[in-house]
Amino acid sequence: MSRWEPNARERLQQSAMELYTERGFDQTTVAEIAARAGLTERTFFRYFADKREVLFWGSAMLQDFLVERVAGAPAGTPPMDAVTAALEATGPMFEERRDFARQRHALIVGHPELRERELIKLASLASALTEALRGRGTADLIARLTAETGLAVFKVAFEHWVHDPHERELPSHLRDVRTALEAIATGNTMANVRHG
Amino acid sequence: MSRWEPNARERLQQSAMELYTERGFDQTTVAEIAARAGLTERTFFRYFADKREVLFWGSAMLQDFLVERVAGAPAGTPPMDAVTAALEATGPMFEERRDFARQRHALIVGHPELRERELIKLASLASALTEALRGRGTADLIARLTAETGLAVFKVAFEHWVHDPHERELPSHLRDVRTALEAIATGNTMANVRHG
Repeated sequence: MSRWEPNARERLQQSAMELYTERGFDQTTVAEIAARAGLTERTFFRYFADKREVLFWGSAMLQDFLVERVAGAPAGTPPMDAVTAALEATGPMFEERRDFARQRHALIVGHPELRERELIKLASLASALTEALRGRGTADLIARLTAETGLAVFKVAFEHWVHDPHERELPSHLRDVRTALEAIATGNTMANVRHG
Repeated sequence: MSRWEPNARERLQQSAMELYTERGFDQTTVAEIAARAGLTERTFFRYFADKREVLFWGSAMLQDFLVERVAGAPAGTPPMDAVTAALEATGPMFEERRDFARQRHALIVGHPELRERELIKLASLASALTEALRGRGTADLIARLTAETGLAVFKVAFEHWVHDPHERELPSHLRDVRTALEAIATGNTMANVRHG
């Protein structure tokens, strides 16, 4: 059974997401995921440590991608611009998986254990971005704050992207939120405040 | 054994922190905490659900305090100013417990399960602040982003406060980080970037 299975990872992810959505995450077993994908459990465990990791498989890759982009930003790029540009560059990755991202988001929001896992991954991403900025010579406080704030921008933009009925692309949402950040930080939010 | 014990909560917290620091969180039992405080296990459970909650006991109170302050900020206060003012108002609470806060922080940073718990509490705080801002008429995106960014400011300021050898007060650190946020958001961080 060690022959090469074309697109095994994608098939397993797709089957897992279908089952999680149909029956719930807790009610789905690895055996069922593998069966639906037409693969063995053994193949499943060649790609994922457990059924939770199916949902977080891309996060190490995302972190590496962002860190590399931040580290490689042109000299003199202000820290927040380096982080924002890196986030915008993830657009195509997410765009081709919008349905998966949407289902994944709904699943995680509704499941405390998965939310915990997501929060830990984001905290790890914040640390990695802080280090990447420090590696560019950014002072400690600014590096940490830029990483944390950059993730705040990402979280808000991502949620708007996931729920956007007009299906505007992620980079467009990121630019909106980046503009809103500047307004918030400088106190110029009157246009956005309905009253009070 | 139901007679009133003066300062029972504080004595239990103090004993717990001593034991966690001396032996480690995992190696400490509720029986040992109660014994060191000169109280019974039954008294412990009157105040705390488990040994982890000793470290998170104040977080509901902190959340209520911040939400109330944000909701009660003068009409027309920009959202980020409402959040920052609320955070600064927590200063005296933390100041009188600086040693406890410092020990607690060291413990949490070094223990994955406690870090998870902390991340969840912070996520809950972000949701509560978002709702408080929306209750003031702040638009959804701005409310969410202000809450998340406000917590980023709080986290960075809190860490600097905890490690400050000069023991400057928390509100002073909060103001520094708030100023840094404006610099980051507008791209004026050149003074803080050592090179690159």
